[in-house]
Amino acid sequence: MTTIAVLGGTGPQGKGLAARWAQAGLDVVLGSRDPSRAQAAAEQIGVRGTGNLDAATQADIVLVAVPFAGHADTVREVADAVSGKILIDCVNPLAFDKQGAFPVAVPEGSAAQQAAALAPQARVVAAFHHVSAVLLADLQQELDIDIMVLADDREAADEVIRLADVVPGMRGVFAGRLRNAAQVEALTANLISINRRYKIHAGVRITDLP
Amino acid sequence: MTTIAVLGGTGPQGKGLAARWAQAGLDVVLGSRDPSRAQAAAEQIGVRGTGNLDAATQADIVLVAVPFAGHADTVREVADAVSGKILIDCVNPLAFDKQGAFPVAVPEGSAAQQAAALAPQARVVAAFHHVSAVLLADLQQELDIDIMVLADDREAADEVIRLADVVPGMRGVFAGRLRNAAQVEALTANLISINRRYKIHAGVRITDLP
Repeated sequence: MTTIAVLGGTGPQGKGLAARWAQAGLDVVLGSRDPSRAQAAAEQIGVRGTGNLDAATQADIVLVAVPFAGHADTVREVADAVSGKILIDCVNPLAFDKQGAFPVAVPEGSAAQQAAALAPQARVVAAFHHVSAVLLADLQQELDIDIMVLADDREAADEVIRLADVVPGMRGVFAGRLRNAAQVEALTANLISINRRYKIHAGVRITDLP
Repeated sequence: MTTIAVLGGTGPQGKGLAARWAQAGLDVVLGSRDPSRAQAAAEQIGVRGTGNLDAATQADIVLVAVPFAGHADTVREVADAVSGKILIDCVNPLAFDKQGAFPVAVPEGSAAQQAAALAPQARVVAAFHHVSAVLLADLQQELDIDIMVLADDREAADEVIRLADVVPGMRGVFAGRLRNAAQVEALTANLISINRRYKIHAGVRITDLP
């Protein structure tokens, strides 16, 4: 069985995705900088928890779901452990002020490209940026969202599309190469603006797909 | 009656939007650098055509729908004529190579912010980036798309949301301030990737809206 590690799994987005994958019958391990916090969060959703490096070592597929402030350090820590594995990056490099969220510049172009630079042996896929942690956390809540999946490695992208499709109400859509990841990450700032204005938990659907 | 000028109205996106607005009963004038080309294109969709500056002068609301290569020059040309008016920018600063489309950096941050810098008296709104020109052009084709509308001027944004809502199958959604326009413009590169992969004319819907 495929094992998925969710690094930063104590955060709402990582924990929510982990819960949905566990519900779909996948083998999930939460990682955190603090293994005891990972274990506590993991217990809440019926999976196991450990340190980020140990989780990445155990897993076949690794999702990096840490805040952007910890992104580079986390990827560096697991770079060897993810060699040859699919590394999914869902990190949104955003900052906040009283006017809301806005994207911050990433020297490599995007968080996903930063991951590719720091873990050059990993098969980096950008995906799961636009999932509402609030909706994910409520397992009774039906989802209705598309997951934009970006990668230069087409087979890795297809595998991550399947990982989206396994969650009811989620659909993976191939949305380009990693050089087009920055705007997908940054679009989360717009979804936050939409959430504020309409008091909702916005996601995205791609129209005209069969 | 509100008059809308579509600058760059001989291009597929501008002409398609003009046709939809004319169909909805709005007064539309196409602008182009070459007035005779504007007239020829306008005749095809039953509106009038003229030069860009003349069109902007006649109109209450001005849509800039030129290729990014002509964006700055066009906005400079009409800057006085659009003073106090709503200027809608739908321009996507993209470049293309054999791997597809990718965003190009704009010194001001985005095409919309460039328009705001070059026409400081205009009420700049970014919107209509993700409409498929192919779908727009076929007036029998039912639309099913959301229009992300961004502005620092909230009343101008609301007016543009109404301008989206007047087209059947289109819905305007407030999606943030102009500082968050770059990723909305750049996302068009992802839609182009999606179109290539799935052989569709992709648009975007925001989920969880009432």
